[in-house]
Amino acid sequence: MSEKIVTACILVIGNEILSGRTKDANIAFLATELGKIGVRVMECRVIPDIEARIVETVNEVRRKFDYVFTTGGIGPTHDDITADCIAKAFGVGISEHPEAIDRMTRYYGDAALFTAARRRMARVPHGGALVDNPVSVAPGFQMENVFTFAGIPRIVEGMFDAMKHRLVGGKPMLSRTVRTNQPEGLIAEKLGALQQRYEDIDIGSYPGFRNGRPSVQLVLRSTDDQRLASASGELQAFLLEMGGEAEEFVQ
Amino acid sequence: MSEKIVTACILVIGNEILSGRTKDANIAFLATELGKIGVRVMECRVIPDIEARIVETVNEVRRKFDYVFTTGGIGPTHDDITADCIAKAFGVGISEHPEAIDRMTRYYGDAALFTAARRRMARVPHGGALVDNPVSVAPGFQMENVFTFAGIPRIVEGMFDAMKHRLVGGKPMLSRTVRTNQPEGLIAEKLGALQQRYEDIDIGSYPGFRNGRPSVQLVLRSTDDQRLASASGELQAFLLEMGGEAEEFVQ
Repeated sequence: MSEKIVTACILVIGNEILSGRTKDANIAFLATELGKIGVRVMECRVIPDIEARIVETVNEVRRKFDYVFTTGGIGPTHDDITADCIAKAFGVGISEHPEAIDRMTRYYGDAALFTAARRRMARVPHGGALVDNPVSVAPGFQMENVFTFAGIPRIVEGMFDAMKHRLVGGKPMLSRTVRTNQPEGLIAEKLGALQQRYEDIDIGSYPGFRNGRPSVQLVLRSTDDQRLASASGELQAFLLEMGGEAEEFVQ
Repeated sequence: MSEKIVTACILVIGNEILSGRTKDANIAFLATELGKIGVRVMECRVIPDIEARIVETVNEVRRKFDYVFTTGGIGPTHDDITADCIAKAFGVGISEHPEAIDRMTRYYGDAALFTAARRRMARVPHGGALVDNPVSVAPGFQMENVFTFAGIPRIVEGMFDAMKHRLVGGKPMLSRTVRTNQPEGLIAEKLGALQQRYEDIDIGSYPGFRNGRPSVQLVLRSTDDQRLASASGELQAFLLEMGGEAEEFVQ
């Protein structure tokens, strides 16, 4: 199988995540949605609102991955420096985008409300294509393979829905999850043997707690549903044989 | 002020975060707790369970930051490869740690329960110091400035509490948050001017929603509480002057 794997990196820009004040919610959303259209998130980074760090990181990851998605830092305040940093990373200028100005002029209506600070949100690096914002109008933008989104999860979701048709993914990743009450330490050997027989399937084991008792989720991932069904069948069979529970969820 | 800033990087190792299946909870916990003892998280990365990626990333970040904390991949199953990768990154061997074996032998009691798979969790890179696990015994470990923790949040919390006395932080970062109903676009100019007058304070503006209405959290961060109080006072004064709300939270 020589199918092309389409990769992505998510870059979360913001001191508020690094300080622990805010829990990121965008990685899980974007990773799930990208997976559905066959784009595999291979790395995520959270970096601070520091120009040099943003510029160097964008330039590193846009060369390593097919797609890069940045979240955060495109609002109207002094700490919103992402758009300028993306322009620097690409070595281009940045100025008000006429279409963005048009949309925001209509949205704010009263010229007194379309403040200088809000006009900053219409600035787009030269050569950038707008990403629609169905929530609060001020757009994101695309520079080559780099998509720059807002940070507010509701807006990220709207922006992603508005632009996802631009992405060209590979085969979507499918998964089946088998939950069991058998502890990892007792199933590890047979699970490892199953992984060896199904080298084309990524088998992950995620222990946790369910109703206060240990519980393990065994996640099988592949682009081939038939192989998944077969591996999941073998997995469930050996769990039941051990006297354990085996509850399958197909995603 | 030439106070030393102590930095950290959090490395989340796990396909389950990159697939969007699991929302990471460890970054927010570790970042908050590290902040309290004066260690500043300057970067987080989420990387897949791929040996080469783990080894190269560990070697990159352990040189860039004062401390590195890894989470995930030290369980008993085939996909738990973090300990071996850390050994490779440091160029040392890995074998069963006698103290870890002792603890786990006592914990499991019955020798039949202390399976070969579970014995893998007693393997520590040579030169590593154990990190206690008050939840499920199988330890984490420290190699120089790199601390390797489990992935389950409850265990990460226990391990961090057990080892945090080993960390030497700088001055703890303090913060004050002022919540307002004034939109960012109307306060941005005065907020930017405030930031210029208080260059030593990191002022972040985080828009969101509260009871369905736009709401902005203005977060002031510094190691100097007097300066924070002064900046927060000025901030609240101008918000009230505009006819807005200004509600302060001191952390």
